[in-house]
Amino acid sequence: MKLTADWVVGFVDAEGCFHVSLTKHPEMTAGYQVLAEFVVVQHKRDVAVLHALKRFFGYGVVRPDHGDRYAYRVRDLDGLAKICDFFLRHPLKTKKNVDFRKFRRIILLIQQGEHLSRSGLLRIIRLAETMNTQHPPRLQQIRQELQGSLSRGEE
Amino acid sequence: MKLTADWVVGFVDAEGCFHVSLTKHPEMTAGYQVLAEFVVVQHKRDVAVLHALKRFFGYGVVRPDHGDRYAYRVRDLDGLAKICDFFLRHPLKTKKNVDFRKFRRIILLIQQGEHLSRSGLLRIIRLAETMNTQHPPRLQQIRQELQGSLSRGEE
Repeated sequence: MKLTADWVVGFVDAEGCFHVSLTKHPEMTAGYQVLAEFVVVQHKRDVAVLHALKRFFGYGVVRPDHGDRYAYRVRDLDGLAKICDFFLRHPLKTKKNVDFRKFRRIILLIQQGEHLSRSGLLRIIRLAETMNTQHPPRLQQIRQELQGSLSRGEE
Repeated sequence: MKLTADWVVGFVDAEGCFHVSLTKHPEMTAGYQVLAEFVVVQHKRDVAVLHALKRFFGYGVVRPDHGDRYAYRVRDLDGLAKICDFFLRHPLKTKKNVDFRKFRRIILLIQQGEHLSRSGLLRIIRLAETMNTQHPPRLQQIRQELQGSLSRGEE
C-alpha cells in the first residue's frame, strides 16, 4: 500500500492524535517525565494502513491496542520531529491543526531540554492543558505541584 | 478550504460511511423504500470540513446531527452516482473499500429500477446485509418478509 502526503493528512485529520502526558519519574530533576506521542488507532482489519503509515514516516511501531484495535505510535524525538516537519509542510485542515501546533511547540521545548527543569516542565504542562488531551485533571494536579515547588525556590 | 482528491480519500477512509437502510412505504410495489446514503459526521467545531466536502462533490446537505455533531449527507441518486464515480477513480485504502463496492452495486441496481420489485429489493437487501451496516437484524426481518411474499408468488 503506497500512501500519498494528502491521503495521510486526510486520514490523520480524522484518526490521528497528538498526545502529551506526564509520568512520575523520581530520577528526573523535575520529578516527572514527559511522554509525547503521535498515535493512530485502527480496528485490526485495517492494520495494513498502520504499517503503511509506519513506512511512510519511517519511524514508530505498530502494536495491539485495546480489544480488537491496533495502534501506530511514534514516541522517539527524531520521529516526532520528522512528523512535525511533515505536518508543517502539509497542514491539517481540521481544528486538529490547533492541537498539532501546540504539540510541535512542546516538541521544540523538549528538544531544547526545557522538560528537565521544573519551570520548563511547567511551560510544557500549560501548553498541554490547552490541548484536546484526555487527562486534564491529572495535568492540572502536576502543574499545581510544580508551582508549589517553584514558589519554594526549587528550580 | 480547498480539498484535494487524496485528502478526501484519506478522510473518508477514516470518517465516511456508506449506508443502506429500508423503510416501510405502502405505496411502493415492494412495500419498502430503499434509503442509500453517503454520510460524514464531525464535531461542530469542524463543520467547515463538511461544507468543503459538499462543495467538493457538488451534492448533499450539511445539517446538525446528534448532540454536538454535524453530518454531511448525500441521498439523491445523481449525487451518489457522482460519489461512486469518484471512489472508483480514487480507491479507498482501508477495508471500507469493500463496503463501498457493495454500496456501488446497490446504487447500480437502484438506477436500473431493481428496488421497485420484490425480487430486486431482495437482491439489494442481500448485498446490504453483508455490509458493515448498523441494523442487520432489521434487514434480515425485511428479507424474510419479502422471501415469504415471493414464495407466495407475489412479484
